[in-house]
Amino acid sequence: MLAFTKELWMNVPGRRGIVSLQREIERYVDESGVQEGLVLINAMHITASVFINDNEQGLHADYERWLEQLAPFNAGGDPAKGGYLHNRTGEDNADAHHKRQIMGREVVVAITKGKLHLGPWEHIFYYEFDGDRAKRVLVKIIGD
Amino acid sequence: MLAFTKELWMNVPGRRGIVSLQREIERYVDESGVQEGLVLINAMHITASVFINDNEQGLHADYERWLEQLAPFNAGGDPAKGGYLHNRTGEDNADAHHKRQIMGREVVVAITKGKLHLGPWEHIFYYEFDGDRAKRVLVKIIGD
Amino acid sequence: MLAFTKELWMNVPGRRGIVSLQREIERYVDESGVQEGLVLINAMHITASVFINDNEQGLHADYERWLEQLAPFNAGGDPAKGGYLHNRTGEDNADAHHKRQIMGREVVVAITKGKLHLGPWEHIFYYEFDGDRAKRVLVKIIGD
Repeated sequence: MLAFTKELWMNVPGRRGIVSLQREIERYVDESGVQEGLVLINAMHITASVFINDNEQGLHADYERWLEQLAPFNAGGDPAKGGYLHNRTGEDNADAHHKRQIMGREVVVAITKGKLHLGPWEHIFYYEFDGDRAKRVLVKIIGD
Repeated sequence: MLAFTKELWMNVPGRRGIVSLQREIERYVDESGVQEGLVLINAMHITASVFINDNEQGLHADYERWLEQLAPFNAGGDPAKGGYLHNRTGEDNADAHHKRQIMGREVVVAITKGKLHLGPWEHIFYYEFDGDRAKRVLVKIIGD
Repeated sequence: MLAFTKELWMNVPGRRGIVSLQREIERYVDESGVQEGLVLINAMHITASVFINDNEQGLHADYERWLEQLAPFNAGGDPAKGGYLHNRTGEDNADAHHKRQIMGREVVVAITKGKLHLGPWEHIFYYEFDGDRAKRVLVKIIGD
């Protein structure tokens, strides 16, 4: 069995942002030499996601608005009035820990005949919910 | 290491629907010959999900209503009033891209002693959010 | 290829609760002898989740409140007024089946050089949504 491991550093400017990982993952699959296997791609930080969906800017803007409705930033909110208890620790990123649960920590993608086995519009993205700092994505490939 | 790959075609009538994948996946696990390993089952289209939950029609109807609350269809909605920017591309399925994020793209299930290793009520389903067309589910099995 | 399988029994007192699985998973990775591979950790019951996020009690209390907003308990609610059809079966846990979809069924974690390959704050948890009974988590490790 072959195994390939890569930590990919990200530094997304601003609070939030969506960044394509597609080319990097394709390259790592090539480098790994794996013909048949699986690749795991996960955010290593708990205020970010890895997800697969459309590479379309309107949709990404829709996600932004939607996630803000489902888990508002509300950094200084009073917990008695719906604010986050987590932010009492001095953090202001409780919303990011919630948004990550909606969008997901990880994806697992098949490798077939040496290539990522994705559907026609599937595209792999990193979603930063608490940016302006260096964070990592883990890429782990196993197979033959 | 053994590897087994299958693209399973779906064509769900109507806009949305939940379809059991259980028997097909059980058969593929048998065909693969894998005794110990993992099976990845993922929607190959970004307006559909694969998930594991109860095989109970009332619950499935509850999911329908719930997802419609969390991410309404609202196809022609004005983006200035909460409509989707994605639908400006001529699509009407922005809601489907959101519903998929709640229900998930994929599941990974263990194979033990040649069988799917599921809990007593776990059942594998495909969830179509934009139907009346041919779409695929990918089944990838690796192991020994 | 090595394979390791463990069913971990849980019995969380009360309706809901979050329990760390970290030490058990670390021990199983050691026991498996796998140096490079993947570990799948999933709830075997459809009213529970496995997730990775912060080991911080304020955040866990925030999740409790948030999930109750997104999918209220509402056990005896009239389906005509937004109650769950699922609970007509005699169950009172429809909300639990919904909460699991937000928090997720499973996580897949890389194993590198014989250790769980997690980010600095990533911590593996079981989330019980319908407790006071014996339930299982499945740990499946494959690799070399």
